[in-house]
Amino acid sequence: MGQHTFTVVTDGSITSPRGFRAGGLHCGLKKTTRHDLGAIVCDVPATAAAVYTTNVFQAAPIKVTKESLANHTLRAVIVNSGNANACTGKQGEEDAFTMRAAAAKHLGVGEQDVAVASTGVIGELLKMDLLTSGIAALPSRISSESAAAEDFCQAILTTDLVKKEICVTLEVNGKQVTIAGAAKGSGMIHPNMATMLSFITTDAHIDADSLQQLLRETTDLTFNMITVDGDSSTNDMLLVMASGLADNDQLTPQHKDWESFAAAFRHVCEVLAQSIARDGEGATKLIEVSVSGAISDTSARVIAKTIVGSSLVKSAIFGSDANWGRIIAAVGRAGEPVNPETVNIRLGDIAVLTDSKPVPFNEDEALAYLKGDTVQIVVDLRNGPGKATAWGCDLTYDYVKINAAYRT
Amino acid sequence: MGQHTFTVVTDGSITSPRGFRAGGLHCGLKKTTRHDLGAIVCDVPATAAAVYTTNVFQAAPIKVTKESLANHTLRAVIVNSGNANACTGKQGEEDAFTMRAAAAKHLGVGEQDVAVASTGVIGELLKMDLLTSGIAALPSRISSESAAAEDFCQAILTTDLVKKEICVTLEVNGKQVTIAGAAKGSGMIHPNMATMLSFITTDAHIDADSLQQLLRETTDLTFNMITVDGDSSTNDMLLVMASGLADNDQLTPQHKDWESFAAAFRHVCEVLAQSIARDGEGATKLIEVSVSGAISDTSARVIAKTIVGSSLVKSAIFGSDANWGRIIAAVGRAGEPVNPETVNIRLGDIAVLTDSKPVPFNEDEALAYLKGDTVQIVVDLRNGPGKATAWGCDLTYDYVKINAAYRT
Repeated sequence: MGQHTFTVVTDGSITSPRGFRAGGLHCGLKKTTRHDLGAIVCDVPATAAAVYTTNVFQAAPIKVTKESLANHTLRAVIVNSGNANACTGKQGEEDAFTMRAAAAKHLGVGEQDVAVASTGVIGELLKMDLLTSGIAALPSRISSESAAAEDFCQAILTTDLVKKEICVTLEVNGKQVTIAGAAKGSGMIHPNMATMLSFITTDAHIDADSLQQLLRETTDLTFNMITVDGDSSTNDMLLVMASGLADNDQLTPQHKDWESFAAAFRHVCEVLAQSIARDGEGATKLIEVSVSGAISDTSARVIAKTIVGSSLVKSAIFGSDANWGRIIAAVGRAGEPVNPETVNIRLGDIAVLTDSKPVPFNEDEALAYLKGDTVQIVVDLRNGPGKATAWGCDLTYDYVKINAAYRT
Repeated sequence: MGQHTFTVVTDGSITSPRGFRAGGLHCGLKKTTRHDLGAIVCDVPATAAAVYTTNVFQAAPIKVTKESLANHTLRAVIVNSGNANACTGKQGEEDAFTMRAAAAKHLGVGEQDVAVASTGVIGELLKMDLLTSGIAALPSRISSESAAAEDFCQAILTTDLVKKEICVTLEVNGKQVTIAGAAKGSGMIHPNMATMLSFITTDAHIDADSLQQLLRETTDLTFNMITVDGDSSTNDMLLVMASGLADNDQLTPQHKDWESFAAAFRHVCEVLAQSIARDGEGATKLIEVSVSGAISDTSARVIAKTIVGSSLVKSAIFGSDANWGRIIAAVGRAGEPVNPETVNIRLGDIAVLTDSKPVPFNEDEALAYLKGDTVQIVVDLRNGPGKATAWGCDLTYDYVKINAAYRT
């Protein structure tokens, strides 16, 4: 919306914002040789904020991170893959604190300055000897080089093979500010849990409360608007660190460039969220559902998520089937106020339902459109000002194959 | 719970309760030769009650049925398959009223005494010439013979090949009372909508308000506790007719045999609901999730439905994978209060999680159990008195095949 006041930096990474370094390596938690331990480090105390899974069963690392974030400041985050350290009881909690302590020691920062994240197998204790050896070896691998940033991006992945990364730059009161992000999500192979982890770095100077508020609002419009499957796992976390080294005047909602910054931040989160949705287990297509005309934005969000989360809609899209009936059924069961006589539905530019009645359309054109790798479902309820967009993916044979742990 | 005071009548049908006749035929709405038009008729005015889809987009026949049920009395229900008469606008409404009028005329009852139900293709107008010809031919096919009841059961099916039927008998103040039911659901082939239709007949003498209340409460424990996919379609309906010809003292909650009658009624609904769940698209297994120890029954229901509706749990069951992690993740994201440290999970008799920590179990035993056609997931939250049971089915390749309209 409005003018794009930011620029995408195509070769940027999480170490592009000033003050940030990163790195990753293989310490042995994963059975393969792939990287499984990484860290992002900030040269100065960074203003930090996070949002976590709403799942009641929060993994041990989340508890530790919440403690570190109590003073809204971090110097580093240590992340491992290959083991979620979830459902591991008291020992798991102790291990998460030990992980934090080891990272603090070897990175030369205070324990309270380190956040912890884990993803992977659940119900198994961390192999602490391998982990602590890895943490000891990590500092020498940490730099601001793009190769080191790449190592970090790989280290956080579980079964997703595609790293997810974005970097943008903009001006804030004449100073260049960079925002970057790296994420993982949507890999699901027994006995792993789907976990969504996103790490955002920026050199913006911003106060803690403003950053937390911006993160929360943006999460509600992006990461909380994707549905691959199963919604919240035990480990989902989104963490942002702001070094302040861009030296702009402190950002608050009252800053004249606040909206520009928020728009750039939102773009980073939106791109990461969409890439997670597109990389959903077995997915061949990204589905974007845009709802307008709801009674409120909140109502539009519920409806959009219901549509994109519907197995019936998802399988129809997999089959490139212009099945508006399933879309309208999803609208109708979302539990939100809808005028049953004023609904318009488009698939891309192709109108399929107008005033809640089917309209003729070119079947070949629709088929060709639906065979593409991005499908837009556009629903106009014409019943109010509310709008929202949600993202998901198609439901395929590969989804079943991956999640049924099918062994031929 | 408690003693079974009813007996299952294995060769019973919806015409077993006194006063009821039924029949079905093929009138041409379905492209195949299968039956697509049926009716249940009561010799006397029957006390009637119904519950309908909560989907905002209620199909035309539902509107007509609601009008007929305003005085809680019916003589007949006319049902067609092959066309849901949904999303058909004003013409569809007129057609539904015409269908009612034709049935009333040929069955020799008042229009207000006839309920209407449709299932099948959506967005297409009914072929009224074929329908009215069929209705004119129907009376000669209606009888109390079991073959005629069978015709009705077949006439309401869409893609489900398995008819769903149950009949029980019990004593109410010394009089024999029979309750029977026929249902359809869970067939999903483009462009049909999944529709759940259930028809219950009984010769019990019962007042209208008590019947409506019993229906609503029982529906919440049975039909509303199944998840195949997509929950509420545009046409879901559950209808019960009570002829009163058993001549018992009028049943109300104050009747000494009320609990027995309610238990028998619940069993009928439970069996029909489970059979719909088992016949879910592509399903190979019925999944029964029992939750206890929630803070309330309502809370337990939400949790049970979240578990049985989880694609991750459903695919794991398809793969015969004892993946307790996905079950606990579903518990945790249901949005209900849960003590994260006191959860026990069993698969059948096999304990897999105790006090929220994994326990060793015999993998071969678990695999053998999960390969069966009925899987029980038993979750004890140990956090209150609330309990509930929900039913669903596994997520398979065939589900995707059916719903992606995949044509090789």
